[in-house]
Amino acid sequence: MPPLYLVRVDVSKRAFNFCAGPAALPEAVLQRAQAELLDWQGKGLSVMEMSHRSDEYVAIAEKAEQDLRDLLSIPNNYKVLFLQGGASQQFAEIPLNLLPENGVADYVDTGIWSKKSIDEASRFGRVNVAASAKGYDYFAIPGQNEWQLSKDAAYLHYASNETIGGLQFDWIPEVGDVPLVVDMSSDILSRSLDVSRFGLIYAGAQKNIGPSGLVVVIVREDLLGRARASCPTMLNYKIAADNGSMYNTPATFSWYLSGLVFEWLKEQGGVAAMERLNKAKKDLLYGAIDKSDFYTNPISINARSWMNVPFRLADERLDKPFLAGADARGLLNLKGHRSVGGMRASIYNAVGLDAVEALVAYMAEFEKEHG
Amino acid sequence: MPPLYLVRVDVSKRAFNFCAGPAALPEAVLQRAQAELLDWQGKGLSVMEMSHRSDEYVAIAEKAEQDLRDLLSIPNNYKVLFLQGGASQQFAEIPLNLLPENGVADYVDTGIWSKKSIDEASRFGRVNVAASAKGYDYFAIPGQNEWQLSKDAAYLHYASNETIGGLQFDWIPEVGDVPLVVDMSSDILSRSLDVSRFGLIYAGAQKNIGPSGLVVVIVREDLLGRARASCPTMLNYKIAADNGSMYNTPATFSWYLSGLVFEWLKEQGGVAAMERLNKAKKDLLYGAIDKSDFYTNPISINARSWMNVPFRLADERLDKPFLAGADARGLLNLKGHRSVGGMRASIYNAVGLDAVEALVAYMAEFEKEHG
Repeated sequence: MPPLYLVRVDVSKRAFNFCAGPAALPEAVLQRAQAELLDWQGKGLSVMEMSHRSDEYVAIAEKAEQDLRDLLSIPNNYKVLFLQGGASQQFAEIPLNLLPENGVADYVDTGIWSKKSIDEASRFGRVNVAASAKGYDYFAIPGQNEWQLSKDAAYLHYASNETIGGLQFDWIPEVGDVPLVVDMSSDILSRSLDVSRFGLIYAGAQKNIGPSGLVVVIVREDLLGRARASCPTMLNYKIAADNGSMYNTPATFSWYLSGLVFEWLKEQGGVAAMERLNKAKKDLLYGAIDKSDFYTNPISINARSWMNVPFRLADERLDKPFLAGADARGLLNLKGHRSVGGMRASIYNAVGLDAVEALVAYMAEFEKEHG
Repeated sequence: MPPLYLVRVDVSKRAFNFCAGPAALPEAVLQRAQAELLDWQGKGLSVMEMSHRSDEYVAIAEKAEQDLRDLLSIPNNYKVLFLQGGASQQFAEIPLNLLPENGVADYVDTGIWSKKSIDEASRFGRVNVAASAKGYDYFAIPGQNEWQLSKDAAYLHYASNETIGGLQFDWIPEVGDVPLVVDMSSDILSRSLDVSRFGLIYAGAQKNIGPSGLVVVIVREDLLGRARASCPTMLNYKIAADNGSMYNTPATFSWYLSGLVFEWLKEQGGVAAMERLNKAKKDLLYGAIDKSDFYTNPISINARSWMNVPFRLADERLDKPFLAGADARGLLNLKGHRSVGGMRASIYNAVGLDAVEALVAYMAEFEKEHG
């Protein structure tokens, strides 16, 4: 490794990245992280090299939390936790913290991720699948009039956006006093949100927040302290909350970088501005798909995801040339999930309108040539 | 955030960082990470923005594992896992994976970290504290002739180095066929190691490996598949091993950066070279302490840590001026752990001999002035 005292960043070489996650990050955030990677604010060391208990790092961590609170107007009676293990670990943490041994939890099945959460919760207690999109081939979300809720559910769990299927709730379930628990890994911060409707919101960072290896949990305080005796200490929300997410060493760099993303989001105009931008992006992309006879998206209009847009070409033998042409133009990671096939464009906050414009232009060009 | 197209790194401004963790990283590693932070090898995106299932990232992850295998000569019948949650989560994962409900595990208590592992394991089964350094005020490690081993222990657990107390094993326990499980968070890769003596080795990354938010587990294959039914999927070693540590999205950037550290270690001459360097560093520092009447370290000679050197000044009212003077000279994070007081210099692999020389020179200077 030869020393590099001068680093030239040729921004023109940055690709348009439609990866489902770990996903594109704002360029300004990466530039800032790069500039201070060896020497944070003249302190002579990297954020990665700081004690998590140092004044400097605690200030970084607290600012990140405050900026997230500002962005989502998180009420004071909610704790914000910065944890590890991703959403998949939350699939166990949620029942271990919120489902009594003899209780029941309601779950809604809208695709691969919510099914995973159901499978894991079922290992720890009784799960009632209150509704499933299976009857609609996972192309639509059953209306709440079709749901079979339990009488005394400890909570109701759903995924607000299914990253693989491209299915998103554009409404919030009404479950009275039952705590609403939501996996928002792929659409948190992408449009406006009334946090007070929820008992617990969780989101793996690697889509709309920051690098992988971090999961953010926003939990109403009255839900803390209910963990089972068998819950590992590190999976206990109350212990995490009581220790400011520093019961042990947290993922300090991921937390810091997420803080830079929150700062960037505020500079962009916050969640309202993101909502306008994301609406423009998805309108452009679905519009291009719908006006074409060559591209299709199967999801019912009101359940179409703003974040993950799966689409198919008229002939799947054209998938390979489509992807090769996209790669050559710097339009990366458009291949659909292996369980679904076809294409998928993930257009999270950090994917600009210019990226979607470039994609739509390429789609038109490709259709002209092969359609 | 103004765009920064040119980043000047003034290496002379880097401090000497004696932090216990997250700890100093090799400068060459940070420079490499900085250079490719926005554009990894001309691919137009950051490692942080890559799918963990992409060919590029899988190659990064596999190279990191192979380099670690090379550095420690890890036998083929061991799996190497890159997990989340730190050593503290391992305190639960180990009994959940290795301790049968009716079994017993032997633990050795040599300080704060091994006591934490004992407390957590006790929540999941029967723990026999086979030996404790308490009788020696945690200044010495009881010889194995004093240990009270169980007849049929599922495993024996110890911490090879106590970061806070500054107490380190310079020998490996002999426990026959009982799997030896060791917390090597703070001394892995610091000197030569016979992996084949162990059933399981684990280490939080943030001392000798890489950034926090990653824990490396090296586990013998025959110990996989013993997890309890109540073990969360994400905490199950066999599931992690069967999925190449990618059951869900791993901490991709921390894994990548750890890979850069492994590459750097190989360039330095591997673990043997680190052992020579670390011996020179600790000899210099303990030598300075021992020849002085002003500084003291209480640990018995053969149990002194090569990695964490706690020391006291003759008068604790001098602690503050000592730390202020150190800070002014760019000698950072020398304050001892709050539970112990005094000073502590953590001198992991990435802390060079020049850092220890600068510290020893300052100590002599301070003693001259205040001794």
